[in-house]
Amino acid sequence: MSLPTDRPLGIAMIGYAFMGRAHSQAWRTVGAAFDVPRTARRVVVGRDESAVADAASRLGWEEHATDWREVIAREDIDIVDICTPGFLHAEIAIAALEAGKHVLCEKPLANDTAEAEAMVTAARAARQRGQIAALGFTYRRVPALALAKQFVDTGKLGRIRQVRAAYFQDWLVDENAGMSWRLRQETAGSGALGDIGSHAVDQIQHLTGQKATAVRGRLATLVPQRPGADGLEEVTVDDAAWATLELEDGALASVEVSRMATGAKNQLTIELYGTDGALRFDLENPNELWFLDATSPIAEQGFTRVLVTEPEHPYLEAWWPQGHVLGWENAFTNQARDLLVAIRDGEVAPYAPDFADGLALQRVLDAIIASDAADGSTVTL
Amino acid sequence: MSLPTDRPLGIAMIGYAFMGRAHSQAWRTVGAAFDVPRTARRVVVGRDESAVADAASRLGWEEHATDWREVIAREDIDIVDICTPGFLHAEIAIAALEAGKHVLCEKPLANDTAEAEAMVTAARAARQRGQIAALGFTYRRVPALALAKQFVDTGKLGRIRQVRAAYFQDWLVDENAGMSWRLRQETAGSGALGDIGSHAVDQIQHLTGQKATAVRGRLATLVPQRPGADGLEEVTVDDAAWATLELEDGALASVEVSRMATGAKNQLTIELYGTDGALRFDLENPNELWFLDATSPIAEQGFTRVLVTEPEHPYLEAWWPQGHVLGWENAFTNQARDLLVAIRDGEVAPYAPDFADGLALQRVLDAIIASDAADGSTVTL
Amino acid sequence: MSLPTDRPLGIAMIGYAFMGRAHSQAWRTVGAAFDVPRTARRVVVGRDESAVADAASRLGWEEHATDWREVIAREDIDIVDICTPGFLHAEIAIAALEAGKHVLCEKPLANDTAEAEAMVTAARAARQRGQIAALGFTYRRVPALALAKQFVDTGKLGRIRQVRAAYFQDWLVDENAGMSWRLRQETAGSGALGDIGSHAVDQIQHLTGQKATAVRGRLATLVPQRPGADGLEEVTVDDAAWATLELEDGALASVEVSRMATGAKNQLTIELYGTDGALRFDLENPNELWFLDATSPIAEQGFTRVLVTEPEHPYLEAWWPQGHVLGWENAFTNQARDLLVAIRDGEVAPYAPDFADGLALQRVLDAIIASDAADGSTVTL
Amino acid sequence: MSLPTDRPLGIAMIGYAFMGRAHSQAWRTVGAAFDVPRTARRVVVGRDESAVADAASRLGWEEHATDWREVIAREDIDIVDICTPGFLHAEIAIAALEAGKHVLCEKPLANDTAEAEAMVTAARAARQRGQIAALGFTYRRVPALALAKQFVDTGKLGRIRQVRAAYFQDWLVDENAGMSWRLRQETAGSGALGDIGSHAVDQIQHLTGQKATAVRGRLATLVPQRPGADGLEEVTVDDAAWATLELEDGALASVEVSRMATGAKNQLTIELYGTDGALRFDLENPNELWFLDATSPIAEQGFTRVLVTEPEHPYLEAWWPQGHVLGWENAFTNQARDLLVAIRDGEVAPYAPDFADGLALQRVLDAIIASDAADGSTVTL
Repeated sequence: MSLPTDRPLGIAMIGYAFMGRAHSQAWRTVGAAFDVPRTARRVVVGRDESAVADAASRLGWEEHATDWREVIAREDIDIVDICTPGFLHAEIAIAALEAGKHVLCEKPLANDTAEAEAMVTAARAARQRGQIAALGFTYRRVPALALAKQFVDTGKLGRIRQVRAAYFQDWLVDENAGMSWRLRQETAGSGALGDIGSHAVDQIQHLTGQKATAVRGRLATLVPQRPGADGLEEVTVDDAAWATLELEDGALASVEVSRMATGAKNQLTIELYGTDGALRFDLENPNELWFLDATSPIAEQGFTRVLVTEPEHPYLEAWWPQGHVLGWENAFTNQARDLLVAIRDGEVAPYAPDFADGLALQRVLDAIIASDAADGSTVTL
Repeated sequence: MSLPTDRPLGIAMIGYAFMGRAHSQAWRTVGAAFDVPRTARRVVVGRDESAVADAASRLGWEEHATDWREVIAREDIDIVDICTPGFLHAEIAIAALEAGKHVLCEKPLANDTAEAEAMVTAARAARQRGQIAALGFTYRRVPALALAKQFVDTGKLGRIRQVRAAYFQDWLVDENAGMSWRLRQETAGSGALGDIGSHAVDQIQHLTGQKATAVRGRLATLVPQRPGADGLEEVTVDDAAWATLELEDGALASVEVSRMATGAKNQLTIELYGTDGALRFDLENPNELWFLDATSPIAEQGFTRVLVTEPEHPYLEAWWPQGHVLGWENAFTNQARDLLVAIRDGEVAPYAPDFADGLALQRVLDAIIASDAADGSTVTL
Repeated sequence: MSLPTDRPLGIAMIGYAFMGRAHSQAWRTVGAAFDVPRTARRVVVGRDESAVADAASRLGWEEHATDWREVIAREDIDIVDICTPGFLHAEIAIAALEAGKHVLCEKPLANDTAEAEAMVTAARAARQRGQIAALGFTYRRVPALALAKQFVDTGKLGRIRQVRAAYFQDWLVDENAGMSWRLRQETAGSGALGDIGSHAVDQIQHLTGQKATAVRGRLATLVPQRPGADGLEEVTVDDAAWATLELEDGALASVEVSRMATGAKNQLTIELYGTDGALRFDLENPNELWFLDATSPIAEQGFTRVLVTEPEHPYLEAWWPQGHVLGWENAFTNQARDLLVAIRDGEVAPYAPDFADGLALQRVLDAIIASDAADGSTVTL
Repeated sequence: MSLPTDRPLGIAMIGYAFMGRAHSQAWRTVGAAFDVPRTARRVVVGRDESAVADAASRLGWEEHATDWREVIAREDIDIVDICTPGFLHAEIAIAALEAGKHVLCEKPLANDTAEAEAMVTAARAARQRGQIAALGFTYRRVPALALAKQFVDTGKLGRIRQVRAAYFQDWLVDENAGMSWRLRQETAGSGALGDIGSHAVDQIQHLTGQKATAVRGRLATLVPQRPGADGLEEVTVDDAAWATLELEDGALASVEVSRMATGAKNQLTIELYGTDGALRFDLENPNELWFLDATSPIAEQGFTRVLVTEPEHPYLEAWWPQGHVLGWENAFTNQARDLLVAIRDGEVAPYAPDFADGLALQRVLDAIIASDAADGSTVTL
């Protein structure tokens, strides 16, 4: 698929809530920050006409629409950006791919594995036609984590033996906070593990370049009932989870997630321990990467706080001078940049993560859940 | 001046370098984040037609132009945003105010006091006509610093006795780095004190709500010569400076600035010590405010790291969920928001800092320079 | 048992290596820092006469001896302080208790459960005679952890739901480092879990005041072979371990330990998350306790760095003025203080942890090992 | 002077308050930690017989005495350790030196310059006889600061251009806290500048190896009156001070001290910025040295937290395994070690700082005071 020559790449965004706002900011900004193909924010799609009209105006889309099927059929649309709840991902993404569009789909790929498999099949076929089926694990585009990946890939850590990842939030600490769709299995698909633990597992596999081959897991619902419209209701998803992962080269990784970690706001922490070095990262200080070079003289050794704002750092040349830090949202712009570059460059730059990565990740999460169901015993992948 | 009823507020931006990029991002984003009057990025102005055309396209302005006089005369322009080098500020700002436009002028207000005084005169006249003459000390809109101001204003620190501010960068550490216009008095107007020390002094006066009444200062040029086209040239501005300020209520403040602070990238640090509490801030971790409540029980006392990302914090309701941090650029969007609200609300919300604040600040910096020239003895204001 | 009236409490210390040095420092210092019964460092015992003589001189003991049986029979000895390797603990401790002495035994209580049970039986009998059988989990006497305990006990955390403890060291990172007795099951008894994980588990149970009722565990030997005298030898203990613990009130705790955590030197970290607050601690910064009060106003909330050096903090009144921090060794002096006070006050102040606590802890560790042997499935206690 | 062959070095300590406690701990510990000549804590001297008897018992001295003149005449005394208030230093130190003893005198050297000069004269004469006249700027023996000195001396920072030192405490924040001898010029000799600022200035000169050649200073008494026995009294010493120092090689250093820095407990911070690197230190985290190597690749550059607990670090081989941190008191033991080694080795290891260093430092402090008296203008040294 080549770029259209007579017009900018047309983008349609389905959904306009939290993720839609972040994606809009990215599409609005990417051309100013990076040297990428021109884009046009053609249309935003939602079910409620009045609300989506308002969103279009506020978020800067040329048009709004309520029927995503009509939108993905439009000739002037090249990219379909899916920001809906997870249960709608499969239907829209498959249709968009079949309509010949590039797709960027927010995580999770889908709410169940059957859907995810169908999406991967559609993506594989679309790939033959030069289309990209991208998955939004945006944190891979946080510059400090992209730098971490560079450090691992260039051998600065030697062989990685141990990894520790956690994702802690605290928005469920109050046990009087009421039930919501996010706390029901049938609507949310998953709890803390799927929602935020997925980021932790993705980073583990992405940064190490190693797949999990076997897992042990534990899930918990620390507040099992919450007030609903008609009294106390059962919370049917996990609000905390733990797992250990064996990686293909023999390293061991741990994962711990919680929506009950009082005082932790959005704390994705990652630690990598290798034979020659170590790395630490905390999403609440996303411009810092802490690197220890175990090959340096002992008397000078320690974790170095690298403020990831130099032109030498990933994505940073496009942004501000050194020391002028980026925020959470900039990773979405970096993601948009990488997607546009991948579209422009075709085969040269296969975009990751794609739908297949999303399915593989989902299988790890499923294995953790299966292990918990099997009293914690090992589940192999 | 009331808002135009038939069209969005039209913005013209003069200059499109570093600050122009930041301001463009703000104008592009403000309507998506905040509930503000509609705006249109009408035109960006620069001297080099080809370059400004490219900037307009990249930064998302409808048109470009090379003659700022024509632009400020346009009926569809309501706000003139001045991002040029300082020596052009006075002429453009005065003309724009006289043309009936609101003005946002980047800091410093002007390169000399005479110009600054003329600007204040023009701004005073314009104020009678309902126009705003805003000055871009954007860091006042960093949420953590806005929160600091709230804490001071609501008495959480009691009476402030001591303040310590520093602004450290390191881009001049290499003594083989060549001469540039920024290192010559005649082109730059000032060195580290004027460029970054101005932020430190502004914060001291803004946060405490107290004006400096007397100062002592020292300036230094730690690398006095640098390679130019024809051999070594004299550096004629300061690259480091120190000052102490007596504030009107009797507190003492210190300022230290440097472009030689190896390893400091953009490190504006502010410490406020009061009878009932203390605050600390570091611009390299701009989402954190460290607060000590000296009235809490001793056994629990200490500096609290407030992650300034809650809806209860200034500006944050408009942004992302808790724990999803902001970057350096977001303060410019917050600034655009405040300016638009001030324009909308007229007298109700006088915008600060304005040109008069800029002149007053310049007089403090001049006094520091005069003190240094007088061997460090006190200069009163 | 009452205090001797005519002489100081006589102490005999068995063993004089790392722990012996730390205990000697404590006995040497305790009377200067605290108001405690007088003590005399009577005799240090070791097998190698020349070496123990040197140790006595260097560490400040009046005499040295090579036969611990003779020593514990001495009339002038009141306290037997056991700093030998673990496999000797049971024999010496039981004999000393039977000889009517108070005993302070370094952790681990014993190398196997049968020995530990015999020790508890002996301690129970001795307790009837007013003797103390104390176990050296010294970190309970780190002031910041003692303060954490106070905070939990006075309800500042509300109900604790989640705990996270880790103990990371890195002294085994180099895979060419040779075999040693610490890496063989038969001599060391246990690996990272028993050596340092025991501290993590002890803190979890101690700080929460809750016992583990069920566990899941995983052990790993990340470097399974190391060079010995005759080529590569098998490492037969774990060098990393993971566990989750269900606590009696329903909280979940995780434990992670490693001797492979590159760059971690002695990093025991503990995090407690409750309905009303949270705590964090890191043994590499042992004078700091980080406390979050979830009942304070949101806009001011965050983790507070409490520098635990105030007279209002546990043990601190005896030490230095505020801000003058303590080191690792001071916890041993605090431990000696608590033991002497318990001896002086008799029933009023039962000393903890005692041998029964050590046995209970050992059973948790054994359950973790059993869970790993059972492929990670739950083992109840 | 050679070591006595038939007995340990006998120590007499004059004074037994805060500093006496710290010195006692050092003498009690030094022989256990380090390979040094044997010592005996012979006698502690004070004016109040009952109190000094109690101190002798508690702090572990063989005898007590009330007449320091008798004590310094004793044959079995080799070292006189002066821990009295400053106004007694000169008389005791000179007499002890004239009696042929080594002297360790706590800082400040004396309360006025005339006394200090007499002490230096006595020390110079004593030096001819092989006696040491040591001054207690103990922070030079904090391992992290000793490591900083090594880094500077081995060129890791290149040429130092800028230094920033501050010493902040907060024990005078409460303006209702009453008058005391420390707040009167005639008894205290000096205020915050002399008490804690002296440490900052000593570190600046010691670490850089450069003397101050000219200074500008400002002193303030932020709370000028405090309640005394008969109503409000004037505070006649400074409680905060600021200075800039020109160093002999052209670097500029700043000093800021305060007893009003709410929340700062004992916060001596030092920052050194050189052409090739930078260092940062904070006495509230005394086991950490933050080092930036400006010659390392930009993408990896940043401040490295060196946990100064390795055998490769100064003094550490004598203490505990890596990661087992030291406290404030250990620096006193390190100081005792260095003094004993200097005594043992004679000319080979001249001990610093000595009385001449103390006098030179006093002259810098006097110059800062003189500058303030001259409205802040430069005073040369």
